[in-house]
Parts: sequence; structure tokens; C-alpha cells
Amino acid sequence: MSWLPSLKTETHEEGFQLAINLSRTTVKLTQPDDGVRGGLRDDYANNADSPTMASQVVALNFQSISEANNYWT
Amino acid sequence: MSWLPSLKTETHEEGFQLAINLSRTTVKLTQPDDGVRGGLRDDYANNADSPTMASQVVALNFQSISEANNYWT
Amino acid sequence: MSWLPSLKTETHEEGFQLAINLSRTTVKLTQPDDGVRGGLRDDYANNADSPTMASQVVALNFQSISEANNYWT
Amino acid sequence: MSWLPSLKTETHEEGFQLAINLSRTTVKLTQPDDGVRGGLRDDYANNADSPTMASQVVALNFQSISEANNYWT
Amino acid sequence: MSWLPSLKTETHEEGFQLAINLSRTTVKLTQPDDGVRGGLRDDYANNADSPTMASQVVALNFQSISEANNYWT
Amino acid sequence: MSWLPSLKTETHEEGFQLAINLSRTTVKLTQPDDGVRGGLRDDYANNADSPTMASQVVALNFQSISEANNYWT
Repeated sequence: MSWLPSLKTETHEEGFQLAINLSRTTVKLTQPDDGVRGGLRDDYANNADSPTMASQVVALNFQSISEANNYWT
Repeated sequence: MSWLPSLKTETHEEGFQLAINLSRTTVKLTQPDDGVRGGLRDDYANNADSPTMASQVVALNFQSISEANNYWT
Repeated sequence: MSWLPSLKTETHEEGFQLAINLSRTTVKLTQPDDGVRGGLRDDYANNADSPTMASQVVALNFQSISEANNYWT
Repeated sequence: MSWLPSLKTETHEEGFQLAINLSRTTVKLTQPDDGVRGGLRDDYANNADSPTMASQVVALNFQSISEANNYWT
Repeated sequence: MSWLPSLKTETHEEGFQLAINLSRTTVKLTQPDDGVRGGLRDDYANNADSPTMASQVVALNFQSISEANNYWT
Repeated sequence: MSWLPSLKTETHEEGFQLAINLSRTTVKLTQPDDGVRGGLRDDYANNADSPTMASQVVALNFQSISEANNYWT
């Protein structure tokens, strides 16, 4: 089964969670080496702007998902 | 109850506040470790560009929320 | 009265000014500590890329405001 | 007369030039101190990524202007 | 045959994969020197924010592709 | 003749190439000094994130161009 069967979700909150999952999967797919990713995780945890930059990706994906769900009107 | 029951708000200002809340929640969800987040907060407070980067996330989320509210026409 | 009563403006220029005000308010709301913000202002003034990063926030907010005004057609 | 009387332009190229002008004006309005801006200019000229970051602002503004002109259809 | 024959895909997952491919191709086209790219790869693997920044590009391209597929409604 | 006569292209691939050209032209127009640009080129070639940041500009311009071409439906 696909890891991304749809952009549609029942609720706003699930849509937001999907935006986070999509962002995490993107990091895995753009840096597939587990060892490298593990090493980066420590640096990431020490850079105050890392969560902010990750939030930008989530916000962009949430735009796509919100649009796909017609903003859950 | 969901922490994100809707993207709709009564007023522009509430919509903007929601954009800020959404951005803060994203940081919590992408860096769930309280201790790490606490440590980062000091660095964040000393980086002149951190509030600007956070504002980019807010601006992106405000785009989604404005669209969801049809720009409060 | 609300500090953001509307996204509608009479003119393009007022819309652009609103985008700047919105961006400034976001910085205040994401870093509400006056002392910290004051200290950051010096660093900000010495980082050549700070105004550019701030301009990205303005550009994103101007997108929302332009759309809200139907591009002042 | 307004420095931004309209987002409409006759040609694509003029629209692109307007995006650049808008981006430059934003920098002036977010860092109005001439002396500070002058000092930053040297740093800017020595940071390889500065023009790229400035180009992001231009690209965002060009999105607004293109939409305002209905992509010059 | 073109390396980008279409933005249309059968599934969401293929659309997401196309967004990643598009982002990789962009890096190749903006830095065509293989030797330089090879040298950068090590630095890239040591910067915790590099995958996040790459994810921003993917998210922007996924917006275009999602729109082109009408969000796979 | 204009260097940007249209945002319309025959094919997806030409549209993508236009996005790259537009991004390169923006860098030239925002940093018109050839000597400065030449000096920056070496730094650019040594910063692993520079191609990624350039790709963000390309992705934003590709959004405009895709929309202008109605996603080549």
C-alpha cells in the first residue's frame, strides 16, 4: 500500500498531522542514509533555528493539504 | 477536543492569532523534547534572525487561514 | 479596536504598508520580550541578510493582502 | 504620487522589473537607516548567498504581480 | 524524450516522487559541475539543516504538481 | 527585443528551463557588478546549501510559469 494514498483527511488536525508526516518523509527521502541522519539529529537538536526551518516545510505542505481538502469547508 | 477544530475565525485578528498558534504547535510537534526546546530558547533569543524566520512560518500559515476564511470578505 | 480590522485597503501602497506592519507585529508577537528585541536590533543592523529575510516575510504577507484586495483591480 | 500606483504592467519584462523595485523598496522600508544600509552593502557583496536570498523575495513578488496581470494572457 | 514530459501523475505518491526528482534535477542544472557537486555532498551530509532546506524545495514543487493534478480529486 | 517576451512555453521542460533562466537573470539584476559576482561564484561553489537555496528560487518561479501555462493541461 502507498505511504501517501491521499491528501484528503477527515479533520483539520489529521490534515496538519499529514503535513508533518509528509515533511518527515521528505527528509528521509532526500537524505536516505540512516547513519548520516542519526548524526545530524544531534546538531539539529542544538540549532535553535532548526525547528523553525522544519516548520516552514510543514507550513508549505499544510498549504497543499488544506487546498486539497478545500479548507475543510 | 481537537486543538485545531477549524481554520475559520470570526475576525482577521483571531485568524492571525491562529496562524501564530499553529506555528508554535508545529515547533512543539517537530521538536517534542521539552528539555531540548528549553535549551534552544536561549539561543533563539540571541539570534537576531530567529524572529524573522519564525515570522515566515506565521506568514505561510496566515496565507492558508486567510484563504480558508475567504479573506474575511 | 482591533489592530487588524481588515486586509482591505484603498490603494496598493496602503496594502504594501499593511504588509510591513503585519510583519513587524509578527516579530513582536513571536518575541514579546522588549529587552531581548532591543538587544537583537543591533545584531540585526549588522547582518547584511537580515533586511532580505524580513523582506521575504513582507512579500508573503503582501501576497495575502493583494489576494484579499483582488489585486486592486 | 504613489510609488506603487498599480501592480499592472504593459509587458512581462516591466512586471519583472516592478518585482525587483518592490523588493528594493521593502529593504529600504524595513531598514530605513541609510548609514546602516550602506555598511551592510559591503557584507552583502561578500556573501555568495545574498543575491540568492534577494532573488527569493523577487520571485515571491513576481508571483503577486503575475497574478495581478493574469499572467499577461 | 523529455526528462519532464508532464506534471500529471497517476497517484499521489508518484506526484511526490516527481517533486523530489524535480528538486534533484534543479540542483544539477544550477550547479552542473560534477566535481563541485561531489565535494559539496560531504558538507551537505554534515549540515543538519541541509535536508530541511532541500525539503522546502520539494514542498514548493509538490505544490505545483498537486495543483497540476487538481489534488488527485 | 525583450529578454522575457512571455511566460508561455510549448513544453513542460521549456517552462522549467525558463524558471532557471529567470532565476539567473534575477541574480544578475540584483547584483549587477560582474567583478563581485565573479568573486562570489567561488564561495557559492563551496557552500553545500547554495544550490539548494538557488533551487528555492527556481521552484518559486516554476510555480508562476506553471500557473501561466495552466499547468500545460
